[in-house]
Order: sequence, then structure tokens, then C-alpha cells
Amino acid sequence: MSSNLVPCIIAGGSGTRLWPVSRYTMPKPFIRLHDDETLLQKTLRRAAAVTDSGKLLTVVNRELLFRFLDDYRALQLQEDCELVLEPFGRNTAAAVLLCALRVRELCGGQAQLLVLPADHLIQDEPAFAEAVRRAQELAGQGYLVTFGLQPEYPETGFGYIRTGDALGEAGYQVAEFLEKPELELAQEFVASGSHLWNSGMFCMSVDTLLTEAERYVPSLLQSVEACWQQGQHASGQDYEQVELDAETFAMVEDVSIDIALMERSDRVAVVPCRLGWSDIGSWQAVSSLAPADEQGNRIQGEVILHDTRNCYIDSPSRLTAAVGVEGLMVVDTPDALLIAHEDRSQEVKVIAERLKEKGHPAFLGHLTTVRPWGTYTVLRDDDGYKIKRIVVKPGASLSLQAHHHRSEHWIVVSGTAEVVNGEHSFLLRTNESTFIRIGEKHRLSNPGLIELVLIEVQCGEYLGEDDIVRYEDVYGRDTSGEPV
Amino acid sequence: MSSNLVPCIIAGGSGTRLWPVSRYTMPKPFIRLHDDETLLQKTLRRAAAVTDSGKLLTVVNRELLFRFLDDYRALQLQEDCELVLEPFGRNTAAAVLLCALRVRELCGGQAQLLVLPADHLIQDEPAFAEAVRRAQELAGQGYLVTFGLQPEYPETGFGYIRTGDALGEAGYQVAEFLEKPELELAQEFVASGSHLWNSGMFCMSVDTLLTEAERYVPSLLQSVEACWQQGQHASGQDYEQVELDAETFAMVEDVSIDIALMERSDRVAVVPCRLGWSDIGSWQAVSSLAPADEQGNRIQGEVILHDTRNCYIDSPSRLTAAVGVEGLMVVDTPDALLIAHEDRSQEVKVIAERLKEKGHPAFLGHLTTVRPWGTYTVLRDDDGYKIKRIVVKPGASLSLQAHHHRSEHWIVVSGTAEVVNGEHSFLLRTNESTFIRIGEKHRLSNPGLIELVLIEVQCGEYLGEDDIVRYEDVYGRDTSGEPV
Repeated sequence: MSSNLVPCIIAGGSGTRLWPVSRYTMPKPFIRLHDDETLLQKTLRRAAAVTDSGKLLTVVNRELLFRFLDDYRALQLQEDCELVLEPFGRNTAAAVLLCALRVRELCGGQAQLLVLPADHLIQDEPAFAEAVRRAQELAGQGYLVTFGLQPEYPETGFGYIRTGDALGEAGYQVAEFLEKPELELAQEFVASGSHLWNSGMFCMSVDTLLTEAERYVPSLLQSVEACWQQGQHASGQDYEQVELDAETFAMVEDVSIDIALMERSDRVAVVPCRLGWSDIGSWQAVSSLAPADEQGNRIQGEVILHDTRNCYIDSPSRLTAAVGVEGLMVVDTPDALLIAHEDRSQEVKVIAERLKEKGHPAFLGHLTTVRPWGTYTVLRDDDGYKIKRIVVKPGASLSLQAHHHRSEHWIVVSGTAEVVNGEHSFLLRTNESTFIRIGEKHRLSNPGLIELVLIEVQCGEYLGEDDIVRYEDVYGRDTSGEPV
Repeated sequence: MSSNLVPCIIAGGSGTRLWPVSRYTMPKPFIRLHDDETLLQKTLRRAAAVTDSGKLLTVVNRELLFRFLDDYRALQLQEDCELVLEPFGRNTAAAVLLCALRVRELCGGQAQLLVLPADHLIQDEPAFAEAVRRAQELAGQGYLVTFGLQPEYPETGFGYIRTGDALGEAGYQVAEFLEKPELELAQEFVASGSHLWNSGMFCMSVDTLLTEAERYVPSLLQSVEACWQQGQHASGQDYEQVELDAETFAMVEDVSIDIALMERSDRVAVVPCRLGWSDIGSWQAVSSLAPADEQGNRIQGEVILHDTRNCYIDSPSRLTAAVGVEGLMVVDTPDALLIAHEDRSQEVKVIAERLKEKGHPAFLGHLTTVRPWGTYTVLRDDDGYKIKRIVVKPGASLSLQAHHHRSEHWIVVSGTAEVVNGEHSFLLRTNESTFIRIGEKHRLSNPGLIELVLIEVQCGEYLGEDDIVRYEDVYGRDTSGEPV
């Protein structure tokens, strides 16, 4: 048990079943639960509680780096933050093997990985710690260890694991992985006492994982190693990152670690556990986390109900009224509203998929966009003009930039701005304004200690985010024509 | 049949059952149906089609005058527009008697009133014209004539009229007015063949009405006459108005014309008719006007449905998605959302009443406020600042005003503004801006031929609409401290 444990958090997943809160640029790990913590934050805390290596490794899309750091920094954890930045999603086999390569660099081949999806909820932390202890014991014996959850009901949306011979007190050999069953079969599984839900969490030593990968999926491992060679190491203010090369990453097979390895290897064990676990796979699952009133309603925000029962209504920014309805899931966001029957909340993904096909803005992102320097919210987008509310973090700075097709009126409504406008550089205080001409180089920074809030009114014949020429950018973003 | 007919449109009613589209400052007559005409506009057109006096008289709250004129002018009718402006609602007896006094002034005592609520829908215009012809015949014989609709189903929300002896071909004497019945009784009424829905439309000569009022409600008539004496006559650009005095109007009894007169007089007749009539008394009634798709859904706006049936979804400004639901009425507005079961849409008024008790902004008005000079929409209302989109009609002008607690940044995003800012007067073109200091006298006008659209960013410690000092106002509004 002396080997180091490195939690490896896989912050992927689209969470289309949690539309309209989850979007392409706001995947499930970043969804905030009712206690105002994101699933990612909960996973980071949970990981920090069990690590003994002083390190937390996270695999995340590079576009989500700054969103990740916002969540991470808010927790003020003591552990070293290690990041692997993917240019796009490539399933779990790639992510887990990349973690193994990174952990070998950091802690050697004896170190153990604890692979944790960032979008699950675990409510029983002591049980989790105990399960990890057992998994480490089996991983120390050279097993690829899965966590098998005691099934609570005949769920047809999960894969199952059938237990084989016992491996001491810690767990069992895996006899068989079973795909998502029909209801009748699921009922048999639950009744059997020997079937567990496959949680998607794993524990294994780097050496075991790479040995088994070499044996069962050598070409996959080779492609991952090739990609890893091209990775760019860099240090952030409070984190280390390896940014993967898109070209070599694209050569890696898109396959889950279950299919690539777990279902093939004969060194697979399972630790049965009961963790108060949820994959937060639907609005019904989210709903069940909120307390119900006497009529069975669970509400967030300003809601007025008349003879309404067993509804979940999440309406943080507008008034919602319900009359004589029952069993509805209502989720309101500034640009999109969902109304679903509680028994059909899995099918919300159908809506998200249809929006994806259309390239609909309500699939891609929210009206508020998160940037390294802060956020902007589109308040109005009309013919010839667009209004944004821009929030810049203390000390942060947008790129030095110019636009071909629009001029901008800036009005500071809170805090102090440092402005570069053409040849001039000056401070702009609350209730002061400036005008940026078309083509003029400009930059907005927040030199202060509180947030800067600025209203920007853009005027022009073309107001797309891609009308930007960047000259300098402190976040290392492309300075040759990408969106802000 | 030679007497003049003057349609008298009663543009009152709160329409709480059509919340959140109808609000206190946006009552039911001003609701726009799916053909983009308001109920008031439809009533005005219907009235213009039957008048032979060349006049249309409307009773409306004085706060709604400019909203009325917008609707009226869009129709480009040829008739003279006569208005009685009420300081507040005082039920139908007052409104109808005031109409009688005005029509006597305009056309003499032989003239006939055709009293029409402004918030009903009549789809069979020829049948309406024929019913009016019959009513005029009976009114010419000295009857107070009601229009009795052939009941289409056992409605429990309407009053009924039982017919008595026939009065030739034109109609019947009224045997009895009956209050809203229980369902069983309503079923008997429908089966009887002698019961009609009381439509709230009337026809009678001025002399008959005043004679009967003198006989049955002399003190009510006296108070109405006293109020009439204090009324201020004035001419608008394309209308004549009599504005009632609030003090004397407050002395008039708050009672319906039915209770005050119709249920007492023995000179009451009824014209049975079938008009394709609806009182648009609920969202279900509005819904029934829209065409249904194969699944029975009636949708307005951008809506995505998955396995959804028999729903009415009105979502003009946001995306709404529905999954696995049935029989819902969903009405979305920028600041409030309603979800009601189709069978319960009458109970929407309960929500409106609860909001009224709270003095909730979503009861009082919309985010867009209609003013004589145009509209303003609150885009954001935050600590220390507020953002408005202001639209000024061509030729219109806001009052010369100043504020004690806020400064204002103005940015023209469409059209041209004429600005008074302290000692200076100048034009502001699209993409130009100005800054109004706290306490500075200022005025905004649109000298142009197209709408002026201006973004206003207010900054200050207090941003209420009541922080205004008016110095001059072309619309005759209080120049001593009222809201804009």
C-alpha cells in the first residue's frame, strides 16, 4: 500500500440529457447543483480527500481550461494541479492511457491511477474512501480494478458486472461484463445478488495498465505514446499542463477503456460498494437531489404554483407559474426552456441532438460566454447593433485587438477599466465612457481589485465574433484572427 | 330605422385569465391574436362596418389613450374617433350612461348606441350585421336590446337569458336574466332551446336608456351627469376626447349595466344570434383560434416537440422544447412563463391575483412599456445601473426633463436623434453618443422619418422611474414630478 495514488479525473461528457443547462461549451461536469458546487468541484474534493501523492491529474478539453481553473481555484485545494489538455474528445481509452503516461513521468510505474469521471455524484464519502482502500489493495496485486455498485433497482441504462471468485476481503474477480440489459434481465441481475452496476471508476497501477494495454491493444498504446511524444509541456500560474497535438491525437482510436481493455483482460477485479452514487443522467436525477415540499414539488427560483404536484421547476432568472399540472420537469434558461414529463427525462437528449444537427446556438452555448479574462453576456442582438455586458476579473486583460466592421461604445458601470484606444491609454472609471472606432487597436483591462463591469454597444454592418484581429494576448490565444 | 347608430366600444377589462400576456397596463383588448390584430382593432373594424353615423365612440382608461391611438391609427378608418377617457375603471353602468350623454351631444336623443365590449371576438361578420339590424329595429320600438348567443355547449362561466314573447321577426322580450349556472342547470338551459348566452353587447336609443335609468337608478344617473359636467373636452390630432374628472367619477356607483338596468327594466328585448363569438376568456379559447398540427399541437414561435400532443405553446422570443407532454398551455414572455393544464386555464386568474396582492412587476406591466412617444424596454436592471432600449416614433419627443440621482449615456443605434443636453442642442446620428449629467435638463426627440432606436445606460444610486422632473411635455403630462 506504499505506492502513490494519483486521482485521474476525466472531465468529458456532453450531458445532452441535461440540456438546456448543459451545452456543448458547458458540459455536464460544469453544471452547478443546488448547493452551488459543480460536479467537477465535487469530484476534485473527493479526489483530494483520498490522494496520497499530493497530485490531482485532470484530462479536459483545452477550450475548457479556463472554466476548469475557475472551478479548481475556487476550492483552494493544496494538491498540485496536473492537466492533460485534449484538442477534442477521444473516449476513455485514450484519456486513461494518457494519464498512465503522465503519472509514470510524475511518480513512476508503481504509482496507482484512480480514474474518476468528473460528472458523477457520490454522497457517501467514507464509503468511497473505504472502497478506494480496497481497490488499492487489489491494484497492488496487479489487478485492473473496477468499482461495482450494488444495484438499487433494475436500471436498464447501465452496464453490469458479474462477480467471480472472491479475492480476499477486498473484492472479486470479474466473471463477466454485461451490456445494458432489457428490464426483465435487469430484474434478474438485481435479484441474483452477484451483479453490480459498472460505475466507470477504476483503480490500477501504471505498470499493470501499460502491460495489459501492450498485450491486448498494442497499436492503441503505440498511437497514444506517439501522441504523448508530441505533447507540449507548460507551466501555468498554479498548474502544470501537457497540451496534446491534434494531428497525432486524431490517430488514436475512439474507444472506451471498458471495450479496449476491461472486457478483454483476465486481470480484472471488482470492489463492490454502496456509495450514494448517481450519474446525474437526467433531470429526474437532478430533481431527486432537491428537497420536495408537501405537494412533492421541487422548485428553484421564483415560482408560483396553483394545484400543482410532483413537479421539478428550475427557473433562476424569471418568474414561472404553473396551474393544475403534475409530474413535469421544467428547466428555464435565458434563451431556452425545457418542459418534459418526469418519466421521459432521458429523452431530452433527442432535443439536444436535433439542435446539434441544426447547429443551433442553444446547443452550442449559453448567452453568457466564459473567457479566460471573465465573461460576456449578449443582452440584445439586433440589426446593426449588439449589446454586451462584459465582466473582467481583477488583474485580467482582453487581447489587444481591432475589428474591421464594427465600432464599440464602452461604458463602465462598475469598477475601473484600463483602456488602450489607438494611441491613447487611460483609466475609465464607473459612469465614464469611450468610443472605439472601426479599425482602431484597443484593449480592455481590469487593473483593480474588484470586478470590472462594462456595457459594450457595438454598431456595424457585421457583428460576428469572428471579426477580430488579435495583436497580443496574455492567454496565448491565436493572435491572427480567431474569435475572442 | 332612420336614427343614427353610434358604436360605443367599452375598452376595459383586465383579462387576468390571459396572464402573462395581459397585464394591468396591457388589458385584454390590447392583446394581439395570431393574425397580429388586437381584439380592440377587430372590434373597431366591426363597429366601423355597421355604423351609419360616421362616428366611433370608445371609453378607455386615460393611461391607455396612446396605446389606443396606436391601434386605432394603424387601421386608417374613415370614421370620427370620439373618446371618453376614464381615470380608472368604474364598471359598465357608468361607461354606458356616459356614452349616452356623449351621443346625445353628438347626434341627439333619437340616436342609438351599439355597446360593444372591446375584448370579444366575432368571426361571422355578416351574421353580426344582421343581428345589429334586428336590434336597431327593436331599439327603435323603445327597447333596451341585448344580444343573446345561441349556446354551443353548457358553459358555466356565462350568464343566460330566457326568452319571453316574440317581438315580430326581430327578437323576443326577455323573460329572465339567469346567473352563471351549475353544470346540470347549464345542460338544461342548452336543451331547453329558450336560453341564450348573455353576450354583454347592447343596442338602445339614447332616450330609452336615459328614461329607464331615470326610472330605475335615478341617483346613479345623477352622479354620472354630475361627472359629465366636469368632463374636459379637448381635440387631438385626429380625435375628440372628453376626459373625466377623477373626483366626481369616484362618486359614481361601481355596478354593471346588467344589474343596474337590464335586470330591472320591463323594456328589455333580446336578439338571438349565432356569431362565431368568443369572449377569449382563457388561453384555451385563444388556443382554439390557432390551427392544430397532426398531433393536435398549436405552436407560435420556435418550438421543438418530441412525442408531445394537444399542447398550445406560445413562445415568440425564446426556444421552447417539450418532451412527452400532453394537454398543456405554455405561454412565454420575456419576464414570466405560464404552464397550465388545458382544462384548468380559467384558473390562471388565481396566479394573476396572487401577483396583484404582491404588487409584483409581472402583474403590472411588461418589460416593454408603451409611452405616447414610443416604447422603452428594460434590458438589464442591476445594482447601480440600468439599460434601456428606447424607440421614439418619427416626429415624437420625450419631455424636457432632469433626474436627481442618475446620469445617462445615450447611444443612437438606428435613426437620428435631436438632443437637448443642458445649454446645447444638437443632432445625434447612428453610432454617435452623448452623456447627460445628473441634474442636467435634457430632451430626446426624433426629427426623422424612421424610428429612432437609442440605447440608454443609466448610472446612479437610485434608478426608479419616479426620479424625473418634467419641465415641458408635448403630451400634456404632469410637468411636476410624475414618471416618464
